[in-house]
Amino acid sequence: MLKLADARRIIDAAEKKAKEIGQPMNIAVVDEGANLISHIRMDGAWLGSINIAINKAFTSRAFNISTKELAENSQPGDQFFGIHVSNHDRVMIFAGGIPLKDSKGEVIGAIGVSGGSGVQDQTVAEAGAGAHTC
Amino acid sequence: MLKLADARRIIDAAEKKAKEIGQPMNIAVVDEGANLISHIRMDGAWLGSINIAINKAFTSRAFNISTKELAENSQPGDQFFGIHVSNHDRVMIFAGGIPLKDSKGEVIGAIGVSGGSGVQDQTVAEAGAGAHTC
Amino acid sequence: MLKLADARRIIDAAEKKAKEIGQPMNIAVVDEGANLISHIRMDGAWLGSINIAINKAFTSRAFNISTKELAENSQPGDQFFGIHVSNHDRVMIFAGGIPLKDSKGEVIGAIGVSGGSGVQDQTVAEAGAGAHTC
Amino acid sequence: MLKLADARRIIDAAEKKAKEIGQPMNIAVVDEGANLISHIRMDGAWLGSINIAINKAFTSRAFNISTKELAENSQPGDQFFGIHVSNHDRVMIFAGGIPLKDSKGEVIGAIGVSGGSGVQDQTVAEAGAGAHTC
Repeated sequence: MLKLADARRIIDAAEKKAKEIGQPMNIAVVDEGANLISHIRMDGAWLGSINIAINKAFTSRAFNISTKELAENSQPGDQFFGIHVSNHDRVMIFAGGIPLKDSKGEVIGAIGVSGGSGVQDQTVAEAGAGAHTC
Repeated sequence: MLKLADARRIIDAAEKKAKEIGQPMNIAVVDEGANLISHIRMDGAWLGSINIAINKAFTSRAFNISTKELAENSQPGDQFFGIHVSNHDRVMIFAGGIPLKDSKGEVIGAIGVSGGSGVQDQTVAEAGAGAHTC
Repeated sequence: MLKLADARRIIDAAEKKAKEIGQPMNIAVVDEGANLISHIRMDGAWLGSINIAINKAFTSRAFNISTKELAENSQPGDQFFGIHVSNHDRVMIFAGGIPLKDSKGEVIGAIGVSGGSGVQDQTVAEAGAGAHTC
Repeated sequence: MLKLADARRIIDAAEKKAKEIGQPMNIAVVDEGANLISHIRMDGAWLGSINIAINKAFTSRAFNISTKELAENSQPGDQFFGIHVSNHDRVMIFAGGIPLKDSKGEVIGAIGVSGGSGVQDQTVAEAGAGAHTC
């Protein structure tokens, strides 16, 4: 089970990366139930990204997939096109959400990052996920 | 900080432009926190544009970008496709929303215009933004 | 039909009264269709009152009654108790919303005010409604 | 302006108090625009309190009042009864939300706490607010 201490360590690692690349971010971590454990908005990060970061984390745990991969299946004509309006508009289909797994490979939570380009969000989310220890 | 007097001056300039081009508009201004300062619906303007004008202003402040530019990154296949359902469906991804900045270049609010074609909305929003003095 | 010029005159009168009593307010006017014509938030007025002022105006036109009177019928045990969750939570059941009538006594819009005590909101709404000429 | 470092210090102080009284809590801080800066859910805290803590903070900034005081004016028959359905159901009318002020007494944000009894939430919120330095 992911605890607050884990969420904080993951968020700290993501925040460090965001500072390195010079882009303030919103960073969120959800648990096994896809429920928020913690969120931070770095100084100067976009207000609209509060909701997006939290919901990228929700999405990644809700479907056990990165939002970047989900995006590839959710474009017009794709098998999941339209999924973004499900779950009360909480499904984010662009990069920045990554599942977190336990030592058996089971998804036990997720990180969501929003505040820059898709590439930046993904980079920061990966840095956060990298600080997760099974 | 953007005050009501500023919002009124910005709205008046936008309204003047809307009259010039002969297209009644909804015009809204939000502050630094993306919260509404003022809104007008010109006589004969679309009812559906009340919500859109207010939310274009919200969007431009929420992401510190014009909704016209955001639109270019939010089409199918683009890095932000799907962003329009975030933030409780308040993210508008078509022209008519423009950030307002202070003398240091920091975004301190935004104007949103809706009621005509994309070109018309953008033209009127630019006229309003042009009346903003840092 | 209520026009933007009418809404502005009504709002100006309400704003003047709000200044007199020293309480910054949100003030909104809706038309015959209960759709927003104009809104202002005076400097320093509560952020939470943006939504309330607009919805008090909506409510007064939606039921052709002042929100103060509606309140008297909407308490626990009263005939309309529970009405406040109808219409997507837009029904406000406390003072500050007043219908606006034409020369035949037909309701053609409403004013909504929020930002102070119930007595203050009502006082300012009455000042605005007083500037309405059939 | 309230920064992330401020929010963290306020949250840490609240968390410390929550541990002292042995009740895990959700703790949130919003900024001047009533937008979320940071949130934590302590291990074992109620899932339903994520939303409540964030919205108590929203409410305290939205109306520049503690949710405990707002509660006293929002009971059946009171001047604000019904306010809890405004603002898209984000207005919390029970203890645990406290405004944060600057050195001039202006409200620049708020803390919201949820996870225990009203007395416990208020106690923890006060501890957090006490760590706020103008």
